[in-house]
Amino acid sequence: MDKVLLIICDGLSDRPITELGGKTPLEAAKTPNLDRLVKRGLTGLMHVVDIGIRPGSDVAHLSLFGYDPNLYYSGRGPFEAVGIGMEIKPNDVALRGNFATVDSAFRIIDRRAGRIEHTFPLTRALNDMLIEDTKVYVSVGTGHRAAVILRGKNLNGRISDVDPHKEGVKVRSAYALVKTASAKKTAKIINQFVRRSYQILSAHPLNKKREKEGKLPGNIILLRGAGILPKLPTFLEKYSLKAACIAGGGLYKGIGRLLGMDTIEVPQATGKPDTNIKAKIEAALKTFKTHDFVFVHIKGADVLAEDGDFLGKKKFIEKIDAALSPLVKREDILIVITADHTTSSILKIHTADPVPLLMAGKNLHTDQVTLFGERSVASGKLGHIVGKHLMPIILDFLGRAPLMGA
Amino acid sequence: MDKVLLIICDGLSDRPITELGGKTPLEAAKTPNLDRLVKRGLTGLMHVVDIGIRPGSDVAHLSLFGYDPNLYYSGRGPFEAVGIGMEIKPNDVALRGNFATVDSAFRIIDRRAGRIEHTFPLTRALNDMLIEDTKVYVSVGTGHRAAVILRGKNLNGRISDVDPHKEGVKVRSAYALVKTASAKKTAKIINQFVRRSYQILSAHPLNKKREKEGKLPGNIILLRGAGILPKLPTFLEKYSLKAACIAGGGLYKGIGRLLGMDTIEVPQATGKPDTNIKAKIEAALKTFKTHDFVFVHIKGADVLAEDGDFLGKKKFIEKIDAALSPLVKREDILIVITADHTTSSILKIHTADPVPLLMAGKNLHTDQVTLFGERSVASGKLGHIVGKHLMPIILDFLGRAPLMGA
Repeated sequence: MDKVLLIICDGLSDRPITELGGKTPLEAAKTPNLDRLVKRGLTGLMHVVDIGIRPGSDVAHLSLFGYDPNLYYSGRGPFEAVGIGMEIKPNDVALRGNFATVDSAFRIIDRRAGRIEHTFPLTRALNDMLIEDTKVYVSVGTGHRAAVILRGKNLNGRISDVDPHKEGVKVRSAYALVKTASAKKTAKIINQFVRRSYQILSAHPLNKKREKEGKLPGNIILLRGAGILPKLPTFLEKYSLKAACIAGGGLYKGIGRLLGMDTIEVPQATGKPDTNIKAKIEAALKTFKTHDFVFVHIKGADVLAEDGDFLGKKKFIEKIDAALSPLVKREDILIVITADHTTSSILKIHTADPVPLLMAGKNLHTDQVTLFGERSVASGKLGHIVGKHLMPIILDFLGRAPLMGA
Repeated sequence: MDKVLLIICDGLSDRPITELGGKTPLEAAKTPNLDRLVKRGLTGLMHVVDIGIRPGSDVAHLSLFGYDPNLYYSGRGPFEAVGIGMEIKPNDVALRGNFATVDSAFRIIDRRAGRIEHTFPLTRALNDMLIEDTKVYVSVGTGHRAAVILRGKNLNGRISDVDPHKEGVKVRSAYALVKTASAKKTAKIINQFVRRSYQILSAHPLNKKREKEGKLPGNIILLRGAGILPKLPTFLEKYSLKAACIAGGGLYKGIGRLLGMDTIEVPQATGKPDTNIKAKIEAALKTFKTHDFVFVHIKGADVLAEDGDFLGKKKFIEKIDAALSPLVKREDILIVITADHTTSSILKIHTADPVPLLMAGKNLHTDQVTLFGERSVASGKLGHIVGKHLMPIILDFLGRAPLMGA
């Protein structure tokens, strides 16, 4: 056993829901394959960052890959930018953004411009701008999303969001979160960029066409998540494992790339509930010909829970389970299945509840747990761990952990 | 209840083994005495250093005695040297070594010189050498083992191993692991010593005699595990417990001495599977007339697992169990039985799997666990602890823990 398949089901776990008879979507779903893996594996609960800490998906992934987010996280922008294929350099400030609709007083009508898509002409119109001494690069994300990179002297990532995260209010001015000249300069450039984006976009032919068709124009770019990318040791450097990443969403590809993982493109992987999970698992199994460690990210459950759709989440979990059938008897691979965080379908937010963790391999301890659920795994042999323990345990199960002492 | 008997069964725990019906050697062994102690005690799993950390025996013992290895561990040499009775002074660099066989090109033929024994004449020939301003002391260990102390000005323990840990390759040159003049000087002295050991040993009458008899000569001393001994508070200073150590292996006696424990010699304790465990337990019980805390170390299970002999390990565990019969009803002593680390009989290495822990005394909580095994104790009342928690729990069970606050 010298290969690892780590499947992160984003927002898999949940809280009990009255309409599901007091069960969570994971507990209510029929998951025969997960349960078979549990029977020949060992289980526990993982606090992905720490007990009581409610993580975003970016911070959660860093933590469970063993990269302390207190050292390595400085805003989501850089991860999104890398995820959509932008080249980022040391000291670049990166932000993520939405194409949105505002009125002439900068009041937000729609944060997603009617879920505008195919925004390449808009990003091209904004790309490669010079503000003071700083170059601004803009690149298209999925749907209404984009990423922005600022490249210049003395920039700082500690800047507030322009995006107020709600509609009916005015666009905010970015301001420095630390009292340094570099932060003040960066905030000023961001504010200038946002104003110029409105001037350019509101006159853009694509938006004129959308307005004629009765659609909302993407007439501004709302920025958030500013950060400077830290220097991250690669997965290979840290764990001596040749790793690959299979994901639909840009953030997860971005994290994979930043950790030096090879990105395996699976065209049917959409990062949405319609994704083809079977195709991702098949691609993962093929990838073991060349790689030691494959990270598969499955987004759907989180999206559905954030929409409050617990029935859809239950069905999506059953879809995940069906895709796992090729794994049930694979003893040559260490199979690790868990979540990056809990997403409550009632609260429609991430919560800090620990996530269930399942590890199945050859000649490992099993435990008495027979079902994969938030409550059932609480008596598993792994007990309660925190995210930073996951990779050391994986290395140890492979017989590849470093020895401390002699 | 004011006495503590701590029995460390080195490498006691293991992973499931197909040939044992998916049980570990501990689970497969018939252990009626351990099970009786479990029934009147409480249990849990202990991560001896931390979750996912794979410890050497030296680091593991420091950690479970409450001495943070990050502060107190600097290579195994000093522990071995003290263990075989050498006097070590502050700033001495100590190393452990093997008498080995090399050819004239310093290629290693046998790392243990045909498991040479009775090497006192060889160590005497090397002892008390002067290299530059540094005195070199050599003392005989068990079997092919020896320890070396360097005493001089400006020495440093951060030196690489001369021993390449495999055969068919050349002896390595020691080099400085830190860029200081003291480390460079120390490496140079070690390399000179190793060369001179070859000159002296290859001409030694004992080796000439071995060669005539067709035996491999111990014609070089391969050094490893350099370190300078840190200042350790004694067990008495730290815990107000008068402690004694009963062990066969030099390392464990060394750790006991370094912590200020009195070493109780039990002639039948060999540090090998043929050791007389009954004699050690009897000696321990006698020692309570004068001491509060007795540490008994039993090495055999680890040795057998490192040889892949899981059936031998199972039998050895049954031998341990048989020796415990005098303890089953002793409520006047807090009996603590655990391991320093897991040793996998399949991988033949230490692993980071937590070790089972059993504590039995008077008027303590019991739990529902009835068998002593890696999986059975996972639901015990002690839960998952790390090594640094063991001594505080022991002190508290005695009613002797310090009060924090008022």
